[in-house]
Amino acid sequence: MTVVRSTLPDEARRVSSEALQETLIDLLGLSLIGKQAHWNVVGPRFRSVHLQLDEVVSSARTHADTVAERAAAIGVPPDGRPETIAKVFSLPAPAEGWLRDSEAVEVMTDALGAAITRLRERIDATEKADLVTQDLLISITADLEKQRWMFEAENHPRES
Amino acid sequence: MTVVRSTLPDEARRVSSEALQETLIDLLGLSLIGKQAHWNVVGPRFRSVHLQLDEVVSSARTHADTVAERAAAIGVPPDGRPETIAKVFSLPAPAEGWLRDSEAVEVMTDALGAAITRLRERIDATEKADLVTQDLLISITADLEKQRWMFEAENHPRES
Amino acid sequence: MTVVRSTLPDEARRVSSEALQETLIDLLGLSLIGKQAHWNVVGPRFRSVHLQLDEVVSSARTHADTVAERAAAIGVPPDGRPETIAKVFSLPAPAEGWLRDSEAVEVMTDALGAAITRLRERIDATEKADLVTQDLLISITADLEKQRWMFEAENHPRES
Amino acid sequence: MTVVRSTLPDEARRVSSEALQETLIDLLGLSLIGKQAHWNVVGPRFRSVHLQLDEVVSSARTHADTVAERAAAIGVPPDGRPETIAKVFSLPAPAEGWLRDSEAVEVMTDALGAAITRLRERIDATEKADLVTQDLLISITADLEKQRWMFEAENHPRES
Amino acid sequence: MTVVRSTLPDEARRVSSEALQETLIDLLGLSLIGKQAHWNVVGPRFRSVHLQLDEVVSSARTHADTVAERAAAIGVPPDGRPETIAKVFSLPAPAEGWLRDSEAVEVMTDALGAAITRLRERIDATEKADLVTQDLLISITADLEKQRWMFEAENHPRES
Amino acid sequence: MTVVRSTLPDEARRVSSEALQETLIDLLGLSLIGKQAHWNVVGPRFRSVHLQLDEVVSSARTHADTVAERAAAIGVPPDGRPETIAKVFSLPAPAEGWLRDSEAVEVMTDALGAAITRLRERIDATEKADLVTQDLLISITADLEKQRWMFEAENHPRES
Amino acid sequence: MTVVRSTLPDEARRVSSEALQETLIDLLGLSLIGKQAHWNVVGPRFRSVHLQLDEVVSSARTHADTVAERAAAIGVPPDGRPETIAKVFSLPAPAEGWLRDSEAVEVMTDALGAAITRLRERIDATEKADLVTQDLLISITADLEKQRWMFEAENHPRES
Amino acid sequence: MTVVRSTLPDEARRVSSEALQETLIDLLGLSLIGKQAHWNVVGPRFRSVHLQLDEVVSSARTHADTVAERAAAIGVPPDGRPETIAKVFSLPAPAEGWLRDSEAVEVMTDALGAAITRLRERIDATEKADLVTQDLLISITADLEKQRWMFEAENHPRES
Amino acid sequence: MTVVRSTLPDEARRVSSEALQETLIDLLGLSLIGKQAHWNVVGPRFRSVHLQLDEVVSSARTHADTVAERAAAIGVPPDGRPETIAKVFSLPAPAEGWLRDSEAVEVMTDALGAAITRLRERIDATEKADLVTQDLLISITADLEKQRWMFEAENHPRES
Amino acid sequence: MTVVRSTLPDEARRVSSEALQETLIDLLGLSLIGKQAHWNVVGPRFRSVHLQLDEVVSSARTHADTVAERAAAIGVPPDGRPETIAKVFSLPAPAEGWLRDSEAVEVMTDALGAAITRLRERIDATEKADLVTQDLLISITADLEKQRWMFEAENHPRES
Amino acid sequence: MTVVRSTLPDEARRVSSEALQETLIDLLGLSLIGKQAHWNVVGPRFRSVHLQLDEVVSSARTHADTVAERAAAIGVPPDGRPETIAKVFSLPAPAEGWLRDSEAVEVMTDALGAAITRLRERIDATEKADLVTQDLLISITADLEKQRWMFEAENHPRES
Amino acid sequence: MTVVRSTLPDEARRVSSEALQETLIDLLGLSLIGKQAHWNVVGPRFRSVHLQLDEVVSSARTHADTVAERAAAIGVPPDGRPETIAKVFSLPAPAEGWLRDSEAVEVMTDALGAAITRLRERIDATEKADLVTQDLLISITADLEKQRWMFEAENHPRES
Repeated sequence: MTVVRSTLPDEARRVSSEALQETLIDLLGLSLIGKQAHWNVVGPRFRSVHLQLDEVVSSARTHADTVAERAAAIGVPPDGRPETIAKVFSLPAPAEGWLRDSEAVEVMTDALGAAITRLRERIDATEKADLVTQDLLISITADLEKQRWMFEAENHPRES
Repeated sequence: MTVVRSTLPDEARRVSSEALQETLIDLLGLSLIGKQAHWNVVGPRFRSVHLQLDEVVSSARTHADTVAERAAAIGVPPDGRPETIAKVFSLPAPAEGWLRDSEAVEVMTDALGAAITRLRERIDATEKADLVTQDLLISITADLEKQRWMFEAENHPRES
Repeated sequence: MTVVRSTLPDEARRVSSEALQETLIDLLGLSLIGKQAHWNVVGPRFRSVHLQLDEVVSSARTHADTVAERAAAIGVPPDGRPETIAKVFSLPAPAEGWLRDSEAVEVMTDALGAAITRLRERIDATEKADLVTQDLLISITADLEKQRWMFEAENHPRES
Repeated sequence: MTVVRSTLPDEARRVSSEALQETLIDLLGLSLIGKQAHWNVVGPRFRSVHLQLDEVVSSARTHADTVAERAAAIGVPPDGRPETIAKVFSLPAPAEGWLRDSEAVEVMTDALGAAITRLRERIDATEKADLVTQDLLISITADLEKQRWMFEAENHPRES
Repeated sequence: MTVVRSTLPDEARRVSSEALQETLIDLLGLSLIGKQAHWNVVGPRFRSVHLQLDEVVSSARTHADTVAERAAAIGVPPDGRPETIAKVFSLPAPAEGWLRDSEAVEVMTDALGAAITRLRERIDATEKADLVTQDLLISITADLEKQRWMFEAENHPRES
Repeated sequence: MTVVRSTLPDEARRVSSEALQETLIDLLGLSLIGKQAHWNVVGPRFRSVHLQLDEVVSSARTHADTVAERAAAIGVPPDGRPETIAKVFSLPAPAEGWLRDSEAVEVMTDALGAAITRLRERIDATEKADLVTQDLLISITADLEKQRWMFEAENHPRES
Repeated sequence: MTVVRSTLPDEARRVSSEALQETLIDLLGLSLIGKQAHWNVVGPRFRSVHLQLDEVVSSARTHADTVAERAAAIGVPPDGRPETIAKVFSLPAPAEGWLRDSEAVEVMTDALGAAITRLRERIDATEKADLVTQDLLISITADLEKQRWMFEAENHPRES
Repeated sequence: MTVVRSTLPDEARRVSSEALQETLIDLLGLSLIGKQAHWNVVGPRFRSVHLQLDEVVSSARTHADTVAERAAAIGVPPDGRPETIAKVFSLPAPAEGWLRDSEAVEVMTDALGAAITRLRERIDATEKADLVTQDLLISITADLEKQRWMFEAENHPRES
Repeated sequence: MTVVRSTLPDEARRVSSEALQETLIDLLGLSLIGKQAHWNVVGPRFRSVHLQLDEVVSSARTHADTVAERAAAIGVPPDGRPETIAKVFSLPAPAEGWLRDSEAVEVMTDALGAAITRLRERIDATEKADLVTQDLLISITADLEKQRWMFEAENHPRES
Repeated sequence: MTVVRSTLPDEARRVSSEALQETLIDLLGLSLIGKQAHWNVVGPRFRSVHLQLDEVVSSARTHADTVAERAAAIGVPPDGRPETIAKVFSLPAPAEGWLRDSEAVEVMTDALGAAITRLRERIDATEKADLVTQDLLISITADLEKQRWMFEAENHPRES
Repeated sequence: MTVVRSTLPDEARRVSSEALQETLIDLLGLSLIGKQAHWNVVGPRFRSVHLQLDEVVSSARTHADTVAERAAAIGVPPDGRPETIAKVFSLPAPAEGWLRDSEAVEVMTDALGAAITRLRERIDATEKADLVTQDLLISITADLEKQRWMFEAENHPRES
Repeated sequence: MTVVRSTLPDEARRVSSEALQETLIDLLGLSLIGKQAHWNVVGPRFRSVHLQLDEVVSSARTHADTVAERAAAIGVPPDGRPETIAKVFSLPAPAEGWLRDSEAVEVMTDALGAAITRLRERIDATEKADLVTQDLLISITADLEKQRWMFEAENHPRES
């Protein structure tokens, strides 16, 4: 017996839930690496970067919640367990240990950039399947692109 | 003389205002039956369901306001009078008198489900007519689908 | 089996619940026609009347909630379903379509005036039956009379 | 020498202060047994009942304060000392130890019901003595009847 | 032509508006003498009495507003002009110049006491005329009696 | 014995306290006539003028408090008793009874205008005596001139 | 070297940034002429229109900020300098000096109407280029159409 | 069957729960006698002591809640029923009737002093049993010692 | 016919309004170039400077509002239209395009410095004309000098 | 070169940082599985459990932040990266997919219970090393034991 | 090289910064002795004086911040180091140890009085140098004179 | 006669009060040098360091208050007078005049480091004397170590 019945036809649900599940992992991963950098950053820009990273984390957590509940809303159980994140998450991430402020800025620029590229593909993929899911992905992209710009601007001039 | 001039061409306005007027009645009706269930629910889950229903009502009232003002904004007077609601409203609704908590959950699942089906048709219908109106309907659908999931989840295992 | 046992003797409960049920419909109706006027008002006083109407709606909704829960509290299920409102509601109300600001002010003056007349009869009727219910009706009357005065003052000099 | 002079004639003060003193003990007792149940409740409805009981406690505490200050205001010192509560308090109350959620709901329904019966007698008794005191008792009764309904509704279907 | 039509019959309106007009002057006067004492009090209890007087003023202002708007609501224009207050106000009041803290406490006890005596007469007078007006006077009396008690308690042991 | 010792020389204190005492009466009077107009205004602009008058009242009350406490701060007891206001207050004021909205706007424009003229004289008078008192009068003038402009702008085109 | 790298392909970025830059100027211009009207409006509707204009200004400023940061987010520096606004801004605007309330309402209706027409063209233009930018333009249009309706409703009956 | 399983070994749980149960009664008793004094205090320091007592009550209620929930958390049902308080509570307490301000200050100094002595014994007793419970008792002692100091300071010079 | 009558003599009004009009343009210009820099700043201090610029903008907007309303209050219509700003504004300003953080800091230091010089001249000019206007200009200068210091401190050591 | 110098001797730092690092992983893991259960729970207690889980998550996130920053404060970089969590986290956790409400309650009881056992070992281990770290672990244990009790109480009677 | 360039000519800067530096020390000293008295006060007025002293401290801290930042704003580094305060501070101050409430009131009256005398000299001294600095000193004087009056009023009748 | 009686035996009180008095001076000194640096810092990190320093000051002030009140609570008058601070305070501190941002960061790292070393000795010293005092010192140490880490992280790479 289906636990939560869907308001979407099967194929639409399949496409949408796949996009949502992948986005969920990206966002949970971003929130974890954002915190990791928030705790480990060192250097003259410590305070500024420390605070900015917490805004990314807060943003990623809120989006993750919306995305997971959207999956549930279309009848598909979201999967955000530690082992799933570890298995699937593939965005650029900081190494272990203290992290120079410029490195923190750079790794977040890269991680956000990679997340955006993947989100834009999912925006295309869900166009036919479900405009409601697509609209959610569009609004997350808008926010991540704003966050990325701020790290990018801070990353100027780029070191290498 | 036209009272409020429209920013839309005639056909687009006709299609959009029809979608908005129908949505308005669904939402006003939902707010009334949500309150009816809120007041009449009995059973061991009383408090939980009582509170949850008030969130649906609050949500439906806010959406109704936005939808009616959108109709006005495109130059068409919205109609939310008692007699119009009574004549047009056709979503599943609770009967008179005390309502068991499981019945309340079920009737709201059904009412929200029916409202969503109709909203999705209107999302298609307004695609060509007015993207602004369509975007509003998409965001209302997102919220109602979230509300529906929570009743659906609560309705598990379904009795019949 | 009685679902919610009453703290009132039978006759007192009958009289009180009748007064409460009638008041509920008047208040729900007021909240609907208040919103209708709020959305459809036009004319140089648009903004002022638009905002004032929302205060009436907010007030009527709050009172309706208190009244319905009072009915439940004395063991009688309140009835605020769309079809009941449509069948029973009989206060003056705006016609379909745009509404001139002076008409909006006038129809609200009349609707509130009629609601007050009926409330005063119920205050008399519940004196013997239940002082708690009477006290609630007194406080609603106080508020509606204040709202009515403000429309009445705004309606001066009256057009006809 | 009188410490705080009364604004009421002697007999009116006697009747009113008696009603207020008895009500004070009922309310302080309700706040204590409400907390007792709040801490000791167990069962699948734990969280819901745990939170609801805190609202009763908060409500009873606020009313107790108003009632005691009303006694002082008419020139009679209120008595809410532990030994007085223990000697006088006679509403139904939970036994020692863990309390099943259904038992908690039932004991509160009964305690509130008994408190209301006594309050209604005092409303009659103070009608001639002091309308200000009566009005206070009426408003407390309204609130306790609302609280009782919610437990009553939650208690459906009653077990025995 | 009547400016604001009344919801009360002529005699009821006459009795109620008289009670309201007299109460308005007492309250406006209380707010002025409360401020006078607030500014001029001296002595070791300065801060405590200074703050307490501001609570009386704030309370009196709020009640005055409600009373004046109630007069308007029953169709009678309230009169709170400086010359009317000066002509009609007759409660005990502080003399010109600095005021010892014990004197401030005593004059407020007396002024509140006198205001309460007059309010209780008006509560009787309006019983037949208008229960809504009576209910308002009851609630103001409750508050002033609470304020009076606090000054009375502070005035212990009384000096003469 | 001096009760509150002054931080100003005698002549400076005399000049300053005279300016403050006169300003206090103007402000208390403005707050009373503002409320009078607030309660008695009628006409199509009722709501707008009713709200605006309350802002003047709130502003005048705050300034009156500051002015009276400034008098006390320089060692002179302020006098804001009802009889003093009645004897001294001489700004334009509304007559008894209902007040047309345009009349309310006009009388406030005139009252504020007259108050400002007198304040500007006191600003000159206190220049030598006490820059702290002068600075206070300047800031009150700034606010009253802003309030006056808003009534003046609303009063356009002037009727006579 | 590119300062802020874009997440969009060149052509998409060109189309989107052009739409955003033009919208930025319209919104900054609206915020300036809204303030100009806010300060210079006179007439019996002064207070109502004065307040309403501030809501438009606040809304336009918020949208301008979002639009400019969106341009930056896609790698293109926004241009909101005074000289650019003066050169490019072309919506209807108030003349110098005092402005009658009806004129203020009319000029805002026209300015908002013209801004909306241009926004709708940009919604079409960005459909292919960037759905994220398009979505932002849609939501701004929704808000401006709501603001326009309120002026339009207030402008009834239109004078010429 | 154990209802709530403990995270502590048996002996540690026994020692801890005994300390918690005794503390609970002291705190509930303090909150009741604090309120008793709050209502019955008279004398020139009325307002100051009246307010201070409410802070003690609020503090004692919050600590009682934490202590009772800590007992539950280690698997032992707390007992805060009226009869238990009356049987066990043994701190100094005010007699019936009005209470002079100096007496109120003194009785609270003594009651808090006695409660602190007992708490310090329980801090020793729980050192081995449960550091988490001990830490809670330490933080309550810190707060009660602060409260006691303020009454002690106010009690200077002591009357005997 | 004069629209808004002045409370100032002609010459005083002329001098004051000239000072206010010039200040208005400086402040509106500052708010525009502050936002321009806020959006276009890049470099390692991006976040810090980005936030600081928003505080300048917010400050400048608030002052502009006060200044424009002061002009209206003395009977002279302020002029803040886009074309007027473009024509009159002459403070240092950023060029088009991305702006290095050190450049942003420097241009704001210069712009604020130039604005202050001009304000100090107007403080002298209005001394005789209108102390109320002068006081406003003094308080704006105090704030801009504080803002300037913070950029100046941040600009150390200066690059050239 | 040491990046962040420690305020602790080497051995104390080693013991403390090990305790903190292990606690960090437990808390991050708890926040992830809490969210997983929050999203996937179904059954009649859905709403109640859904909300309760969010409180655990919020609590765990806050503690994780404090713990990680404590590690940094003693000079050791914390490690909360996805791969570390996946490798190290070993508390009981929900399986993939929908989760019955009773299962959610049970898994959280078990996970919290296991986390507490481990925390109590670390409290012992850090006693000698660093009282500041120990105090932090004590306060986290207090909170988790409270959370566990609430699930435990809700889990009664236990199913197996 | 000058670190922070001044907006004032040299002589004006010298005079202003001297006035500001002296005021800074007076205010920092006041905040320290206010706290000293706040902690050490004993006697029947303990609570009242304890709270009032905290308002002086809070006020003095805020003014100290404004004064120090004003010095920086005109290009002169403020000096608020412990040794500078100790060397320069010369206002009346409490001795070591417990302080009777009447002594606390008296020492604060004296300290504020002395601070005010010195501020008034600096107001004269800065008249020519810098009206912005003078205006700041005027507003601080206004506040300290208000604070002084309240202690003075509380100090009545003066003991010696 | 003892003014405030202690809840501690003599030796325990002596040890505890010594630890508290020394901590008080360290914290008051930290708050003064934190403000000194807050006002005098210059350099590219001005804004970031300026804000961070205010958090240290706010933190130090709050701890100082708690520590001083703890001394009073155990019956010993705290001493925070300017001359005592100057005589006793011995943490590293900034020199007179402008302070480069890197110097500000360094001096705060050192001052906090030294304060922590001394606090840790007092934690040991009070273990036997008073666990309540010890617990307070532990929580202050936790906070200062967090503050220190943030300056330390910002200080990387260290200059010499």
